[in-house]
Amino acid sequence: MSQTIKAGLVGVTGYTGMELARLMIHHSSMELVRVTSRSEAGKTLADIYPFLNRLPLGNLVITQPDPKDLAEECDVVFLAVPHKTAMEIAATLLEEGVKVVDLSADFRINDKATYEQWYDVEHTRSELLTEAVYGLPELYLDQIMGARLIANPGCYPTSSILGLAPALTNKFIETDDIVIDAKSGASGAGRGAKVGSLFCEVADSFKAYGLPSHRHTPEIEQEISKLGKTDITVSFNTHLLPIDRGILSTIYTKLTADTSLDDIHTAYTEFYAGKPMVRVLPKGQLPETRFVRGTVFCDIGLVVDPRTNRLIILSAIDNLCRGASGQALMNANLICGLDIDEGLPMAPMMP
Amino acid sequence: MSQTIKAGLVGVTGYTGMELARLMIHHSSMELVRVTSRSEAGKTLADIYPFLNRLPLGNLVITQPDPKDLAEECDVVFLAVPHKTAMEIAATLLEEGVKVVDLSADFRINDKATYEQWYDVEHTRSELLTEAVYGLPELYLDQIMGARLIANPGCYPTSSILGLAPALTNKFIETDDIVIDAKSGASGAGRGAKVGSLFCEVADSFKAYGLPSHRHTPEIEQEISKLGKTDITVSFNTHLLPIDRGILSTIYTKLTADTSLDDIHTAYTEFYAGKPMVRVLPKGQLPETRFVRGTVFCDIGLVVDPRTNRLIILSAIDNLCRGASGQALMNANLICGLDIDEGLPMAPMMP
Amino acid sequence: MSQTIKAGLVGVTGYTGMELARLMIHHSSMELVRVTSRSEAGKTLADIYPFLNRLPLGNLVITQPDPKDLAEECDVVFLAVPHKTAMEIAATLLEEGVKVVDLSADFRINDKATYEQWYDVEHTRSELLTEAVYGLPELYLDQIMGARLIANPGCYPTSSILGLAPALTNKFIETDDIVIDAKSGASGAGRGAKVGSLFCEVADSFKAYGLPSHRHTPEIEQEISKLGKTDITVSFNTHLLPIDRGILSTIYTKLTADTSLDDIHTAYTEFYAGKPMVRVLPKGQLPETRFVRGTVFCDIGLVVDPRTNRLIILSAIDNLCRGASGQALMNANLICGLDIDEGLPMAPMMP
Amino acid sequence: MSQTIKAGLVGVTGYTGMELARLMIHHSSMELVRVTSRSEAGKTLADIYPFLNRLPLGNLVITQPDPKDLAEECDVVFLAVPHKTAMEIAATLLEEGVKVVDLSADFRINDKATYEQWYDVEHTRSELLTEAVYGLPELYLDQIMGARLIANPGCYPTSSILGLAPALTNKFIETDDIVIDAKSGASGAGRGAKVGSLFCEVADSFKAYGLPSHRHTPEIEQEISKLGKTDITVSFNTHLLPIDRGILSTIYTKLTADTSLDDIHTAYTEFYAGKPMVRVLPKGQLPETRFVRGTVFCDIGLVVDPRTNRLIILSAIDNLCRGASGQALMNANLICGLDIDEGLPMAPMMP
Repeated sequence: MSQTIKAGLVGVTGYTGMELARLMIHHSSMELVRVTSRSEAGKTLADIYPFLNRLPLGNLVITQPDPKDLAEECDVVFLAVPHKTAMEIAATLLEEGVKVVDLSADFRINDKATYEQWYDVEHTRSELLTEAVYGLPELYLDQIMGARLIANPGCYPTSSILGLAPALTNKFIETDDIVIDAKSGASGAGRGAKVGSLFCEVADSFKAYGLPSHRHTPEIEQEISKLGKTDITVSFNTHLLPIDRGILSTIYTKLTADTSLDDIHTAYTEFYAGKPMVRVLPKGQLPETRFVRGTVFCDIGLVVDPRTNRLIILSAIDNLCRGASGQALMNANLICGLDIDEGLPMAPMMP
Repeated sequence: MSQTIKAGLVGVTGYTGMELARLMIHHSSMELVRVTSRSEAGKTLADIYPFLNRLPLGNLVITQPDPKDLAEECDVVFLAVPHKTAMEIAATLLEEGVKVVDLSADFRINDKATYEQWYDVEHTRSELLTEAVYGLPELYLDQIMGARLIANPGCYPTSSILGLAPALTNKFIETDDIVIDAKSGASGAGRGAKVGSLFCEVADSFKAYGLPSHRHTPEIEQEISKLGKTDITVSFNTHLLPIDRGILSTIYTKLTADTSLDDIHTAYTEFYAGKPMVRVLPKGQLPETRFVRGTVFCDIGLVVDPRTNRLIILSAIDNLCRGASGQALMNANLICGLDIDEGLPMAPMMP
Repeated sequence: MSQTIKAGLVGVTGYTGMELARLMIHHSSMELVRVTSRSEAGKTLADIYPFLNRLPLGNLVITQPDPKDLAEECDVVFLAVPHKTAMEIAATLLEEGVKVVDLSADFRINDKATYEQWYDVEHTRSELLTEAVYGLPELYLDQIMGARLIANPGCYPTSSILGLAPALTNKFIETDDIVIDAKSGASGAGRGAKVGSLFCEVADSFKAYGLPSHRHTPEIEQEISKLGKTDITVSFNTHLLPIDRGILSTIYTKLTADTSLDDIHTAYTEFYAGKPMVRVLPKGQLPETRFVRGTVFCDIGLVVDPRTNRLIILSAIDNLCRGASGQALMNANLICGLDIDEGLPMAPMMP
Repeated sequence: MSQTIKAGLVGVTGYTGMELARLMIHHSSMELVRVTSRSEAGKTLADIYPFLNRLPLGNLVITQPDPKDLAEECDVVFLAVPHKTAMEIAATLLEEGVKVVDLSADFRINDKATYEQWYDVEHTRSELLTEAVYGLPELYLDQIMGARLIANPGCYPTSSILGLAPALTNKFIETDDIVIDAKSGASGAGRGAKVGSLFCEVADSFKAYGLPSHRHTPEIEQEISKLGKTDITVSFNTHLLPIDRGILSTIYTKLTADTSLDDIHTAYTEFYAGKPMVRVLPKGQLPETRFVRGTVFCDIGLVVDPRTNRLIILSAIDNLCRGASGQALMNANLICGLDIDEGLPMAPMMP
C-alpha cells in the first residue's frame, strides 16, 4: 500500500477515542487527519491529552463534527460516540461515500425490535442493519473485508463470543445452561464525571452491577445462537474491577458428553489456527488481564471439572483495545485493504 | 462479666494473626496476654507491627509457642497457623483445659478421609473431629456456646454457605446445578514472600486460580449438603482481586419453581432475623466489598433472572475479618460466655 | 457524663460527612440526631450509604439544613460544607446557642484580609474570627475546652504543623528555609463528580498539583509563625496519591546547629508527652500512611542528614480522620466536656 | 542498516529483563537471540512470561549465562543482573569483542573509592571505569556512539539529572541548596520475593524509605557536579508509590537571581531542542507519571514560586523504561549505529 489511508474520529474525549488516538501513533499506513468533539473543538489533541505532547499527532486541531468535512478529508471514519447519536452520523457519512467503523451499539443487533427493546430508543436507520457487518474478524473476516459499515462489537461480547465459539460449533456444550460471569475494568464505565466512577468509590472494592439484564446480553445471544445454530438464552452478569483496563469472563457450561480436555483444547487450537490474535493458552494455564493489556489479544484458558462435568472457559481481553478501539482498527485495516495487524501493539504492558 | 478473659494467639505474623491483634485493641472484656511466633519471639508486637506503637498491646512480647505456658496464662487460645500444624497444638491445649478456636482447616471437615484426600496430609487427631464445632454462628449458635474446640470456617465457605443457606432450607433451588464464582482480595493468599503475591504481579490485573478444585470445596459441600438435606456437589471457582480485603461470591442457582423475588427476599429476611451480622440488602441493592471492610458483616443481595429462571445470590464479606479473625472472635466471645459482638467493629472503612 | 450529647451534621454527602457518620457508630456518649443535605433530604442515611444498613444510625432521616431545627435538637453541630457556605450557618447557630465545629476554612485564618486574598471571597462574619479557636488539640487544648466555635484545621496543615512544632519551639531549625513536600490520598479532592477524580485518571499514576500556591499555605504559615515566634514563609507543595486515605508530608529543614538526632528525638518525645494521638516513632522508623489509616494518630519520623546538615521530618495522618472528621470529633468531645478520645478508633486498618 | 543486530540479555527474570524482552517485540533491526537465567534455564520465554505466548520471541529458550556463547552469538549484550555480578561478566564480554550495556551500577561511578564506599563491595574491574560511558544520551550522545561499554544510568538519577541539567548549565540556581524529593513505583524494588513488596504491604499506602543515604546519591552528585562545574552535595530522598511504574521527582532549588519563568522555560526548551525524548511541558502544565508510562519520555514541568524565590522542577519518567531497559535500548541502538529511537514505543499507556 503506497498511499496513506486518511482516517477521522468522531468523539475523541472518551476513553475509546483516547485509545484510538494512542494506537494511531505507531500506524505507518493510516493517519488520523480529523478528530472531532463538540466540547473541545479548537484545542489541539495535546491540549486535552498531554501524553501526546511533542508527538506529531498532538498538534492535530479538534474540530466540530461536520459530516461534509469528514467525508472530504477521510477515507474511513471511526464513531466513538454514544448509541443513538451514532446512527445518523453513520448514515450521512455512508451517503457521502466514506467507510464507517461504528464503535457504538447502533448496528450490532440485526433485529430492529430487539435493539429498541434493550436500548430503549427508536432505530431511525434500520435500513442499514442488514448491510452492517459485525466486526469480529475471527468470525466474519470475508464480510468485513468487503464492508462499508462495521458494527464494532461490544467489549463483553467480544470476550464472551470468542470464548464460546469453538465449544458451540463443536457441540461440546449444552446450549440451555450457559452462565457468563464477566468482570471489567473501570474504563468500561466511560469518562463521564459520575460519583460512582470516582477513584474513592472504585478503588479497593468490588461489586456486581446491572444484574440481571445488561445491554450486551442480546448481542451475545445473537452471535452465539448463530454459532450454536439454535436460539440461546444466557445468564450474563457483570462486575466492576478496580483496574483501568481488562475484562475476564468466566464462562460456565455443561458438557454434552464426557469430552476430554485434550479434545477440547485441540478443537480450540484448530478453530483459531491462522488467527494469531486469539491465543488458546497451553493446558493448565489460565489467562490474566495483564497479559493482554494494551493489545488486541484475546487469551483463552480451558478447564474441565470432572466432578460436575463442566467446561469452564476463561477469556481475557483489554476492554479498551480488543474490546473497542484496537478491534476498530483491525476492522479499519481490513476494509481499507491493509493487513489486519498494521499498527497494532503486540507487546502487553507488563507490569 | 466482671473478669477479663485472657486470650492467647499462636502465630501472629500472618495476616489473620495481625487482624486478630488489631481487633483486640477495642475489646474491653478479653485481653491478649500471649502471642507466639517461632521467627519473631523476643520482639514486641509494636516491633513487627508499627501500627501498634504507643498502644498498650504494642508492648506485648512475642514468645515461642509453648502449650504449657499458654495453658497456664490463657482461658482461650486462637490458632493462626497452617493446617497440619494446628491439629497437634489444639489437642495439647485441650488436654491442658484450654478452649481453642482453630483458624486452620484441620477440624472443619467431619470426615477424616475427605480431609486427607483434599489436604493431602494425615489427620493425626481425628478423634477430635466429632467434638469440634463448625464456628458459623448463624447456623450453630447453641453448639458453639457449649464447645471447647471451634473449627473456624474458611473465608470462601463463610460467604458461600451464608449466601446459600436460606435458599436451600426453603428448597427454592435445584441442588445439582449450583455454581459459585468467588473473588477474593490478596490478603487471602497470606503473608508469605512469593513472587505471585508481589504488588507488581497483583495490582492492575485479575485472574482465576486454583480451578477446578480449590480446597474449600469439600467444606462448602459438607455444610450445604446438611442444609439441603442431600449430597450436593458444587462448581466452586476462585479469582484474585487487586484489593487488600474482601470476598464477593456470585452464586448461580436454578429455581425449582416460579418463586418471586418478593418471596425469596422475605424468606432470607426471616432466616436471618435476630442475626444482625448478616445483612439481607433491600431488593435492588447489591453488595460491595467496601461496605463490609473491616467488619464481620456478611451482606447478601438477591437477583431473580426471569429469562433463565435463575436465582443469583451475591454474598460479600471481609475475608480477614468475617472470613477469619473477626469470626474467630465471635466464636471466642460465645464460648467464653460473652456477647457475640463484644469488641467487634461495626463501622466499615469507607472509603 | 450521664447524659448523651446530641450532635448535628450539616452536609453529609461528602467524604468528611461520610467519615463523621462512620465515626459516630461507636460513640457511646454522643449521638447523631440530625444530618442535613439539600440534595438528599428525605432519604435515610442507609439509603445513600449502604454500609450503614441494619445499623441504628442508618435509619436517621436526612433533613434540609434548618438552623432553628438544628439548634432545637442539637448540643453541638458539625459543619461539613464548603468554605463561604459555612460562615453564615456558623454565625446563626452560635446565636441560637449551639456549639459549632466548622470543618471548612472559614474561621482558620485569623486575619480577614489574608483569608479574603487566598480564598477569593468576602468574609461576612469576621467578627467571629477572634473568638474561633484553632482546633489542634496538641497546641490549643485549654482554649478548645472553653470554646463555642472551633475552626477545625485543614488536613495538610494538621500534618505539617504537628511535624514542625517541636523543631520550631526548640529552635532546632532555620525558619527561612522550610520546604514541605506533601502527598495526599484522593479523598482529599472531595466527592464531587469531576473527570480529574475518576478512577482511571487517578489510579496507577502520580502528579503534583496546585503549585506553587495551595490554599493551605497561609494556615500553615500562621501557626508555625506563632510557634517559631517570627514570620515564616514556607514552600508548601502538594501531590495526589492513588490511595483513598492518607497524607505523608516530607518536611525539609536546615539545622541551626549540629544538633544530634538523639537530642531532637528526645525533644519531640517530650513535646508530645501526654498527647498519645501523636506518636513520635522510634529512631530509625519512618511513618507509613497505612499505620494511621482510619485513626486520629499522627505518626512522626525523624531523620538527620549529616551530609547536608538537614533535619527531615516525616509526618503521616489519615486525611479524612485526623485531617478532618476525627479531629472534629476530638474537638467536639472537648467542648462538650467528654474525654478527647471518646468514640475514636485506635486500631488502624491493616492491611 | 540492512543486517539485523543480534542481542543478548543476561538476567531475564527481573523486571528490567522482562521490560527489555517486551521492548524487543517491536524492534525491527535488533533481535534478541540469547536470554540467560541461572534459575530458569531450559524453559522458553513464554513459559515464564505468558504474555509472550504465540509471539516469536516467546519461543526463545533461556540458557545458562555463558560468556563464550554470548560472544559468539551476539553483537551486543545487556546485563540485567545485580551490581557486583555485572562487573566480571562485562569485562569478559568486552574481551571477547562484544559491546556491553550494563544496567547495574557497576560502571556508573567514575571514582573507585566512592563506588566501594556506597556499594560496600570491592570493584575488581576498575580499569574499565574510564572507558565506560554514562549512558544518558541527552548529555553524552557522541561518547555513547563510540563506546564499547555503557554504564546505563539509574532510574532516579535519570529523572533528577535531566530535570536539573538546564538549570545548572544556565547557572539559574544555587548549588548548595538542592533537595530532591523522589517517588517511585514498586517495580523499582525488583522482582524478589520480599514481604515488604507484597501487594498487601504496598497497595493503599505510601512511605519514605532509605533516608538519608540512598545509593543513587553519588551518581546524581557526580553528574550534576559536572553540569554545575562545582562539587554539589544534594539532599536526595526516596518514597514508594503504590503504582507499578513511574518516578516523579520534585526538585526544590533556590534561584540565584530574579529569573522569570519565561526565561527559564526558554532555556529548558533550547537545551532539549533536537532531543525529543525529553519533553519540556508548556508553562502551567505539570507532569504525571501516566503520561510517560511504557515510554522513554522524560516530562519536565517548571514552577517558579515568587514567595520563596524558588524554582521547583518536576521530572517524570517510567522507571522501568526510561529509567532502565528503554534507555538501555536507546544506548544499544546508538552503539550499534541505529537511530536512537528504533523499536521504542512512543505511545504512553493511557489510562
